[in-house]
Amino acid sequence: MSDTGVTVKKTDDFNEWYVEVVLKAELADYAPVKGCMIIRPDAYAVWEKIQEVINQKIKATGHRNVYFPMFIPEAFLKKEAEHFEGFTPEVAWITQGGDTPLDEKLAVRPTSETIMYSMFSKWIRSWRDLPLKINQWCNIVRWETKATKLFLRTREFLWQEGHTVHATAIDAEAEVMYALNMYKDVIENYLAIPVVVGIKSESEKFAGALYTTALESIMPDGKALQMGTSHNLGQHFAKVFDVKYIGEDKQDHYVWQTSWGVTTRLIGAMIMVHGDDKGLIMPPKVAPIQVVIVPILFKGLEAKAIATKTKEIEQSLKARGITVILDDRSEYTPGWKFHQWELKGIPIRIELGPRDLKAGQVVMVRRDTGVKTPVIEVDIQATVENLLQEIQDNMLAKAKAILSDKTITVQNYGEFKQVVECKGGFIKAAWCGDPECEAKTKNETGATIRVRPFQREEPTSSCVFCGKEAKEIVYFARSY
Amino acid sequence: MSDTGVTVKKTDDFNEWYVEVVLKAELADYAPVKGCMIIRPDAYAVWEKIQEVINQKIKATGHRNVYFPMFIPEAFLKKEAEHFEGFTPEVAWITQGGDTPLDEKLAVRPTSETIMYSMFSKWIRSWRDLPLKINQWCNIVRWETKATKLFLRTREFLWQEGHTVHATAIDAEAEVMYALNMYKDVIENYLAIPVVVGIKSESEKFAGALYTTALESIMPDGKALQMGTSHNLGQHFAKVFDVKYIGEDKQDHYVWQTSWGVTTRLIGAMIMVHGDDKGLIMPPKVAPIQVVIVPILFKGLEAKAIATKTKEIEQSLKARGITVILDDRSEYTPGWKFHQWELKGIPIRIELGPRDLKAGQVVMVRRDTGVKTPVIEVDIQATVENLLQEIQDNMLAKAKAILSDKTITVQNYGEFKQVVECKGGFIKAAWCGDPECEAKTKNETGATIRVRPFQREEPTSSCVFCGKEAKEIVYFARSY
Repeated sequence: MSDTGVTVKKTDDFNEWYVEVVLKAELADYAPVKGCMIIRPDAYAVWEKIQEVINQKIKATGHRNVYFPMFIPEAFLKKEAEHFEGFTPEVAWITQGGDTPLDEKLAVRPTSETIMYSMFSKWIRSWRDLPLKINQWCNIVRWETKATKLFLRTREFLWQEGHTVHATAIDAEAEVMYALNMYKDVIENYLAIPVVVGIKSESEKFAGALYTTALESIMPDGKALQMGTSHNLGQHFAKVFDVKYIGEDKQDHYVWQTSWGVTTRLIGAMIMVHGDDKGLIMPPKVAPIQVVIVPILFKGLEAKAIATKTKEIEQSLKARGITVILDDRSEYTPGWKFHQWELKGIPIRIELGPRDLKAGQVVMVRRDTGVKTPVIEVDIQATVENLLQEIQDNMLAKAKAILSDKTITVQNYGEFKQVVECKGGFIKAAWCGDPECEAKTKNETGATIRVRPFQREEPTSSCVFCGKEAKEIVYFARSY
Repeated sequence: MSDTGVTVKKTDDFNEWYVEVVLKAELADYAPVKGCMIIRPDAYAVWEKIQEVINQKIKATGHRNVYFPMFIPEAFLKKEAEHFEGFTPEVAWITQGGDTPLDEKLAVRPTSETIMYSMFSKWIRSWRDLPLKINQWCNIVRWETKATKLFLRTREFLWQEGHTVHATAIDAEAEVMYALNMYKDVIENYLAIPVVVGIKSESEKFAGALYTTALESIMPDGKALQMGTSHNLGQHFAKVFDVKYIGEDKQDHYVWQTSWGVTTRLIGAMIMVHGDDKGLIMPPKVAPIQVVIVPILFKGLEAKAIATKTKEIEQSLKARGITVILDDRSEYTPGWKFHQWELKGIPIRIELGPRDLKAGQVVMVRRDTGVKTPVIEVDIQATVENLLQEIQDNMLAKAKAILSDKTITVQNYGEFKQVVECKGGFIKAAWCGDPECEAKTKNETGATIRVRPFQREEPTSSCVFCGKEAKEIVYFARSY
């Protein structure tokens, strides 16, 4: 498969570069079913890391995992009008079981609000049952008609969906922010991707939500990618699915709800943001393998000594909880191996040849900077640990600098269009709040409001689109 | 939900008892979609434990997790004739995406051999690519027409499917046994359910396999439950999907393959085997909560001292890695809590009342035997640890005794029919090996060959069914 490395430069043809990295680093492959992908072991391992971190966080705060059926009766989807309109165009329908046509066609879940909340109305009786905080890891289907993009746009993908039920509006609001901040931590501190957080405009919110908060980032081609969302559902679904509780006041009350999710597209973002012309660069905290050891073999006694020494190093790193591969295959040359592991983005490479053996040292190579450093034997473990953290920090810092560079404030519509066309990225623009300005801008430029940021800045101009008084500065971008 | 406990005795009406335990202990619920279930937090946590144990074991032996699409084109299923015949009657079909009818209808995966192996033929080139050992945790759909049985028979369930590819027949055989033994360890030593292992007869093997090995157990109603299977696929699929490798001999060779799986029905088996008239009994090693602490509260100073002491005990157990709940809710009585946690099967209950406080002790109650023991304060941690192991061991020993009691050797067909009708369980019977005897017996009694055991015993009679010479002793039973 990956006998040759990446042949396209990231800056020359970003889309082609991305496909090559994904395929050649064996992260994913196109499935023989249109619009679908296969997540291969190295990428699935990143997903497992994301699962581990999120599970640890949400369980510590009282959320519990569950599993609901993936089949949703059409009638359920129809109950919340906005929700139905938003999702039906991309629903895959089951119409036949065995040889028998079904009486009512079943949707393959595009999201699970409706089926879950139909049960909540049965399970929740009194204030004692609240809050109810559950989460589900599962597959999701949305019948995309646009071109397939590995990890970013496929008809089936994996996600988690948190669903919580609260007694009060304030509790629901707090939960929305809890989930959003939890995601920010995971995305910035594990995947090393900086994000902007805020609220979606009405036209971009989740179908059926009171409001949607989101985390957005900019990819190297200047397009924005939505990294995760956390919705305040208010009482919309509660009223439709009759989810009520008897309060301490002995009265019936509708509940307040939230839902939130991140998907396997995070892996795509990680590849795009961090990769270079040699291939992938894995952030150490989510890398399935953090260190690869490559013995530089020769025949004779020295080769044996090198083999012994590299095994020792492997064991000592494993004992510290570091994931490591000793690549002592004899059928490949060291040079071939270097390229292979660079393509796969292993954060640190350790080389050990006869000269190193004599000097009582190894050579450590950082994947992110390519810098080579000789490290004496006793310092190996500590250096690896420090270096892993340094690489993690450096990757985030680098990505932050790029995000900052790709965030531009414009003063008028001419500038706006110029930036959209020539540079891309986030465009900070004063907006009057009128959905018509938003719709017109989308039609004319393809850029949409990605978020109304929580970190509010006062407008320094009138509305960039209509000239009326501006209410706020929002982030626009063309997006995936 | 579970204001009242289980109202039916296990021995009076086993089926009704099972449904009550599952619903009242809040392990699962019927979904509003026919034939489907919802796995609730306490049961899903058991599934997560099973995942954790299996993942740890298979990763340590070089297997890696992946994700393949759940959509399988009809043409793929058709490629292996036996496979297609075996699975098509219970396939759910997607025929429409959004508003558009599909050109070719897509099966929702009933198992993933076909879609996976179509890719293996692309990924595998040379002997260097072997063995390929992957595993997938996912949802599976089989459109059952028989009555729904929570955890045991639902149209959608969760499972893992291991799929491995080898250069030689011997390697594949070894892998089949590896998976089988790995399952035996998990089922016996974690779920505390003893199993009989062996080979399936031709009529019961996996559709498309060379042979199928299986783990079978007997439920308290005398019916057998298949706990897991490990298939040797030989070269059947390799030839159909053209999965070949170039050997060190520079020649093309078809690969040898295995597949193996266990499902969420294991949770159903755990409930059936261990539960009693008070509800569930969780084996300590898979229990989401191992210990519940119930303070016996009174007003005044003593109540405060008890609250402080129980919190101390909670913390000290947590520090030892024991999962523990301190149930200090004031809105429920201690008696109500005892019943509640017994229903949910928590292995150990710790009670602390004023008299215990004075005596510097707690009362420890085992869920499996109901035995109460006073334990002095300094011994609490060590006693809990020992008791958890003791309960685990006792549960397995008890289940082994029952299995042994429910395994009966018969000498003739009269006896066979009598045991099938009146007692159930495994019936060990000498068999000539003729599929006609097997088919006739199934028709007349409903009992099938569950396994041809690896632990071979010499027949002491002629074939119980036809009187011809017997080849072996096999295990018959009616089954789920």
